[in-house]
Amino acid sequence: MTIQPIDINNLTKGIGPNVSPEAFTNDKRKIFLFGSPSYTNIGDQAIAYSIEQFITSRFPYYEYIEIMDYATDEGIEFVKKIIHEDDIVMFTGGGNLGSLYLDIEEDRRKVFAAFKDYKSISMPQSVFFENNEHGEQEKKKTQDAYHQNKNLTIAARENQTLDIVRQTFDSNVIYTPDMVMSLDYVPRQKEREGVMFFLRADKEKVMEEDFVAELMEWTKKYGSVDRADTVLDEKVVPTIDYADREKHFLEMLDLISSKKLIVTDRLHAMIFSILTKTPCLVFGNSYGKAKHSYQDWLSSIRFVEYTDSKDVELLEQLADKLMQEEPNEVDLRKDYQPLVDFFRS
Amino acid sequence: MTIQPIDINNLTKGIGPNVSPEAFTNDKRKIFLFGSPSYTNIGDQAIAYSIEQFITSRFPYYEYIEIMDYATDEGIEFVKKIIHEDDIVMFTGGGNLGSLYLDIEEDRRKVFAAFKDYKSISMPQSVFFENNEHGEQEKKKTQDAYHQNKNLTIAARENQTLDIVRQTFDSNVIYTPDMVMSLDYVPRQKEREGVMFFLRADKEKVMEEDFVAELMEWTKKYGSVDRADTVLDEKVVPTIDYADREKHFLEMLDLISSKKLIVTDRLHAMIFSILTKTPCLVFGNSYGKAKHSYQDWLSSIRFVEYTDSKDVELLEQLADKLMQEEPNEVDLRKDYQPLVDFFRS
Repeated sequence: MTIQPIDINNLTKGIGPNVSPEAFTNDKRKIFLFGSPSYTNIGDQAIAYSIEQFITSRFPYYEYIEIMDYATDEGIEFVKKIIHEDDIVMFTGGGNLGSLYLDIEEDRRKVFAAFKDYKSISMPQSVFFENNEHGEQEKKKTQDAYHQNKNLTIAARENQTLDIVRQTFDSNVIYTPDMVMSLDYVPRQKEREGVMFFLRADKEKVMEEDFVAELMEWTKKYGSVDRADTVLDEKVVPTIDYADREKHFLEMLDLISSKKLIVTDRLHAMIFSILTKTPCLVFGNSYGKAKHSYQDWLSSIRFVEYTDSKDVELLEQLADKLMQEEPNEVDLRKDYQPLVDFFRS
Repeated sequence: MTIQPIDINNLTKGIGPNVSPEAFTNDKRKIFLFGSPSYTNIGDQAIAYSIEQFITSRFPYYEYIEIMDYATDEGIEFVKKIIHEDDIVMFTGGGNLGSLYLDIEEDRRKVFAAFKDYKSISMPQSVFFENNEHGEQEKKKTQDAYHQNKNLTIAARENQTLDIVRQTFDSNVIYTPDMVMSLDYVPRQKEREGVMFFLRADKEKVMEEDFVAELMEWTKKYGSVDRADTVLDEKVVPTIDYADREKHFLEMLDLISSKKLIVTDRLHAMIFSILTKTPCLVFGNSYGKAKHSYQDWLSSIRFVEYTDSKDVELLEQLADKLMQEEPNEVDLRKDYQPLVDFFRS
């Protein structure tokens, strides 16, 4: 048998955008991140950014290599050629493990099945399979794929997900916060003006437009009121490749830092508010992603509050309270220890 | 007046080795690190490595640009052309502010005088001027240079230095641990064997060779006994440029991780032992650098102990005790807050 030489000068785009070609062939132990997002969800971009910081700051002796989502198939074939026994395969974190985002779930199945003999991890996720026939079918496909891999660890980012993972999979399970909460980011000091709504326009949306209109009306008392999403409009920004990730993420943090109040049903708009010390009122999505992250990890943050209330008068009082709080800190560093232990051993 | 165009394709070596040329001309706020070491003291290399991590992880919106020590003069001229009003000038940390390492002290004087109108900082240092005529003369020259700069902050890394800085300079003073203690580094798990002595061969050395020989003799009971220094032999490694910094630093950490016990009079051999959870017996240098860092910040670490004892029997008992301790942690993150506040504002 002859070993196929690797033509590192003729690589598919999206394989190792964060490294120089010698990274593929040096003798360092390697960590491969699959599913690195090219789509415009800044929450998912921030997760990939945070995973990179987490690994490179704590484990500088590993070679950390990303494979972009659009290069998953070619990436699997390429990594098969260069992977060594003690290397690690990761799939990125987020809120897409389950039956709602099948393009991503299919890639995750492929990766864990393809590298079934290697230490593998699904980085912190929220898990949700719909409670219907479609959901059950997809759950079965996911189980069949993941269970081929006896070396798989699944990280759950809320208690609710931890229960689901334990009930659904035979894999090892660990429990940590969302990766973005592991950043050391120090917010820029900005003049704050007005209110920004970050609201879903996707299948997880549960907030009614009449209610949103009512909220937008009374928040005018704080200044300008604008509406956006942490998923950028693909007509304006079609994709975000590795090279532009930091820029878009930091622009989003600056935007949030410039507001007096954030109103959102997005988990990461809440987390970005915490990073930037911006008062934030949080509502739910279809299956409790923001709610449970808040309750499990973040409820000691006094300038952010989760609520299911529809009582506008009560919400006004709550918003006033949040804006009067002196921003406090929550230290979750120790809560990432299970992840540190995973990569250490 | 015409503005001189900057020929970024024809830069002196050592200016911005950590960035691509567009970094000099983009519109980000900039932090310049002067004095980035090219010499083979791995302690000083580790400090520069840690400063880079500290800034880039907490303040990713700044452009962080290093100027190597050998390019100080050309670097000053270059930075004068591109610096903006709210940029920050740093000089690296270490144990060389004073009259013992005049080549570095002269560079530091030049930098703080040249950028007297810009926010400037001497990163965490130990300060020592000899108590003689030479020391007094050099102190005067340092005062004259630093005092031109009304925007200068000096960071002291021990209480002893804090006192000296307050008595000697009109500048702002802040107090933080050595920068290397700010790393998130997670040690590799290695087989441990034998004992390594890291001992000075410089003007700060106070340990007598007879005593060292006696120590090396009884430590043989733990296995092999070797002797080295955290300053690499320049006949083997003449210089360490930015590109090779991480490699040499990680090699040193691996070496220390592979030992059962470290015996040293080097501050950074002690700090590397803490990072790698390696039992370590620490002796003094001429002016208390390791001693005071230990007493001020690190005395809760149970597997490391500072001692001035010459009683070999007592030292044996102490070494045995250190090796039996379960490695504990010290969390100094909050102690860097004055530095975070400096860069934030």
